[in-house]
Amino acid sequence: MVRVEHIGIAVKDLNKVNDLYKKLFGQAAYKSERVDSEHVETSFFQVGDTKIEFLEATEDNSAIAKYVDKKGEGIHHVAFEVEDIHLEMERLRGEGFQLINETPKKGADNKWVCFIHPKTTNGVLVEICQEIKTNE
Amino acid sequence: MVRVEHIGIAVKDLNKVNDLYKKLFGQAAYKSERVDSEHVETSFFQVGDTKIEFLEATEDNSAIAKYVDKKGEGIHHVAFEVEDIHLEMERLRGEGFQLINETPKKGADNKWVCFIHPKTTNGVLVEICQEIKTNE
Repeated sequence: MVRVEHIGIAVKDLNKVNDLYKKLFGQAAYKSERVDSEHVETSFFQVGDTKIEFLEATEDNSAIAKYVDKKGEGIHHVAFEVEDIHLEMERLRGEGFQLINETPKKGADNKWVCFIHPKTTNGVLVEICQEIKTNE
Repeated sequence: MVRVEHIGIAVKDLNKVNDLYKKLFGQAAYKSERVDSEHVETSFFQVGDTKIEFLEATEDNSAIAKYVDKKGEGIHHVAFEVEDIHLEMERLRGEGFQLINETPKKGADNKWVCFIHPKTTNGVLVEICQEIKTNE
C-alpha cells in the first residue's frame, strides 16, 4: 500500500463542517462532489499528501446515514492508495480478508475503490483505491 | 497543519492486531512502545508518509479502555503534524476550539502532543503533534 490517500468522516451537516474545518485547517475545502451511487455529498480538504473527506448522506438508506444513526458522527473509514487494485484485492482475499466489493467500483474523486469488511479488519472500515486512468 | 502524522486505532488485543495488519499491509509493525502516562501499549506501522498507531489499554481507567467500552474497537483519533505546536494551540483556541491539554504533553514516538475536544470538532478526536527536539 502506497500511502493514506484519505480519511473519511461521516457528518450530518456538510456546510457546518466545512466552516468548522476551514478554521481548524486554516484553509477551505478545495472541492465538493455529489456521489449519487453512494447517496452522499462530500467535501475534501488537503493536508500534506492526504485528503480529509467529509461525507453527508443524501438519503436515509445510505451507508453513511446508517453509520451516523448507529455510531454517531466521526471517523468512518481510512483509504489506502494501491498501485494495482486488482492484484491487491486478490492478495487480500488470499490473506482471508472479506472484500465488500467483488470488483472495483467507481468512488468519489475519480477513483476505483474497494472496501474491506470491518469484521475482518478488527473493526476498521478499510478502503483501497486507485486513480482511474483516462482510458478506463 | 503539515500532514497527517498518524491515525490512532483503539484495539483490545495488540498481538492479534499486529498479526492481522501485517497481512493487510504486507509488512510488520516497525516498533512497539509502552506509554505509561497514557496507560497504553502501542504498535506502529508505516504507510507512505503516515503512521498507523494501534493502542491497547494497559489499565481499565485509561481513555482507550473507556473508548473501547463505549464505542467498540476502531479508529480513535487523527493526528496532524504542526510546525509550531504552541502557536497552533493559540490559533486554535482563538478560533473557538477547546483544547484538552493546557500545554503540550509528551506522547508516544517522541512527540509533543495536544488533543482537541471532539465536542468542538464535530465528533472527531483531533491531535496536533510536533517532534521533540533533542535539547527540549
